[in-house]
Amino acid sequence: MSPKVLVVGSGGVGAVAALSLTLNGKCETTLVVRSDHDKVVAEGYTFRSVTYGNFDNWRPVHVARSVADAATHGPFDFIVVTTKNIPDGPMTCEDIIRPAVSLQTTIVLIQNGIGIEGPMIQEFPGNVVLSSVTLIGSTNINCEVHNLHKDTMLLSPFNNPNVSAEIAQQKAREFADLYQNADEKVNKVILEESSLQSRWEKLVYNSVFNTICTIVELDVNRCQIFGSNELFNKAMNEVVAIAASDGVVIDDSTKEKFMHIGDGLFYSPSMTVDRMKKQYFELEVILGNPLRIAREKNVPCPVLETVYQLLKMVQLKMKEEKGAITINQQDYKGVNSEKYPEIFQATLHK
Amino acid sequence: MSPKVLVVGSGGVGAVAALSLTLNGKCETTLVVRSDHDKVVAEGYTFRSVTYGNFDNWRPVHVARSVADAATHGPFDFIVVTTKNIPDGPMTCEDIIRPAVSLQTTIVLIQNGIGIEGPMIQEFPGNVVLSSVTLIGSTNINCEVHNLHKDTMLLSPFNNPNVSAEIAQQKAREFADLYQNADEKVNKVILEESSLQSRWEKLVYNSVFNTICTIVELDVNRCQIFGSNELFNKAMNEVVAIAASDGVVIDDSTKEKFMHIGDGLFYSPSMTVDRMKKQYFELEVILGNPLRIAREKNVPCPVLETVYQLLKMVQLKMKEEKGAITINQQDYKGVNSEKYPEIFQATLHK
Repeated sequence: MSPKVLVVGSGGVGAVAALSLTLNGKCETTLVVRSDHDKVVAEGYTFRSVTYGNFDNWRPVHVARSVADAATHGPFDFIVVTTKNIPDGPMTCEDIIRPAVSLQTTIVLIQNGIGIEGPMIQEFPGNVVLSSVTLIGSTNINCEVHNLHKDTMLLSPFNNPNVSAEIAQQKAREFADLYQNADEKVNKVILEESSLQSRWEKLVYNSVFNTICTIVELDVNRCQIFGSNELFNKAMNEVVAIAASDGVVIDDSTKEKFMHIGDGLFYSPSMTVDRMKKQYFELEVILGNPLRIAREKNVPCPVLETVYQLLKMVQLKMKEEKGAITINQQDYKGVNSEKYPEIFQATLHK
Repeated sequence: MSPKVLVVGSGGVGAVAALSLTLNGKCETTLVVRSDHDKVVAEGYTFRSVTYGNFDNWRPVHVARSVADAATHGPFDFIVVTTKNIPDGPMTCEDIIRPAVSLQTTIVLIQNGIGIEGPMIQEFPGNVVLSSVTLIGSTNINCEVHNLHKDTMLLSPFNNPNVSAEIAQQKAREFADLYQNADEKVNKVILEESSLQSRWEKLVYNSVFNTICTIVELDVNRCQIFGSNELFNKAMNEVVAIAASDGVVIDDSTKEKFMHIGDGLFYSPSMTVDRMKKQYFELEVILGNPLRIAREKNVPCPVLETVYQLLKMVQLKMKEEKGAITINQQDYKGVNSEKYPEIFQATLHK
């Protein structure tokens, strides 16, 4: 019996993962599709993929409306999580996949950020959790998937003290086998011992450019033209310093590369697009977790701390606008109106 | 012949200044009213003022549509500038008042910020420039002026190396006499030797709370609830350190007072309101100039520098939206597409 794989999250990355696993023919793939469920069942996806080719009306063998519904197609050997990772959002990734996790399930996180394995291992202590860092360049808009970059996956086990390293590495090799096409010119799975280096390097860009662009809702180039590269440089230096405190050495060329990687592209990072669409963004895994490490290791990060506080305000503002939290103004009435009546009035009405 | 005074800017502060000078009866007052000109000529202002009382259909003796038009009522002994001070905006304050400035004109700046006298003295080197810091709490919405706080003015000469200190102080006393009502219970002009202390103290609030609220478009309380007071505290410490480098000692109680001054008020600073109305805000005089002093004096201000860079982006974004600047994307095309084709693609499309 071939292994059963559940793909959770049907954005650009999830849809391509379901396609790749299916085409490779070594497992039985179920894809959870929430909002587009009926459309996918009726019409399937349109793929325009430089990695896997073009397909019309394509769908995996099972399409489920929810993780709970998908459970009937299990138990799953692998659950591939491609959703955004927003622990401060309406639902954690752990809660999302829980209905489909069994004792033998290996959880594969195709997600950005650092420290994302922590809550997962806490919730599912006996399960293997794998890290996947992908370079893919894929969007799914209304069931039309455009994949413009060769699907390249850096795969490794996350460190889980409750699981033997051999078993974890074995699971990584098994998943690599399910995902890696026979012809390496098609896609490319690269097994790594640890994901720390790849994840920190990606953060040199994501913790800096994604976050700053999101605060001001501008593309990278405009931020650089309107502001100064000194700000980006200082922020990247802070990420490099946190990474060093976590044992990861990042070469100066990485900063230089990222500073100019978007020259002339006027590209808005996905976090910025999320904010523009009034969707929650991945603040904690991209910036909150690195800063928690920085505080633990006494790495001063005044720029990133400022950026983080501002984005916390933005995310909570969005929560209030969505009605997810309520501010009761009466709760915050201070005593200053009595203490400083003159200035109080002036501040109120100036 | 009584002195002639021109009031430029007819917001809450300017309208009240024109009222106060007129009621005091010691000068001939001309008020420049741009957008509301016809309405003010036809109907006048409605005042509800705790300082000066209530008036309907009130107007000063002369109302002019522009500073150039106002010149026919000159030459002016005093020009009182109450406009916003936005050197990076469409018109500098110097350009605004130039048509009405003569050699004997004393220029009174009722404006926030630090370093605002620099460009003024450079443009009009032989003129006395006075500093006025006011506590007034006044708004003018559609010719209805609400003044909710006793009009208190801290008046002093700015240091102008081309003018004798005695003459400058004499001019300050003369203007105080024109503005101070016979009964000090009505309004209050306080003569100071220098405005540095008052201006820096006001900046402990304005450079920190106005700016941060403006980035995220939230009131002060929400910024404090959603973010952390640590950010505000660090930013206030930076202002205090710059002030110290400029010879001004600010007591710790000032920070404590400002941290809680708005408790329960859910008040949006005027800079934030400007941004919400898509109007340029006073970034340079409130934050840019303090930071220029900080750089000169080697005072590290990582939080305020970050805030400044972000607000520069916001202001320039607004400029582009208004069509005041144009970004030609072709000018920014880099060479990285050739240098890093894979990552370039991935960044573009991820």
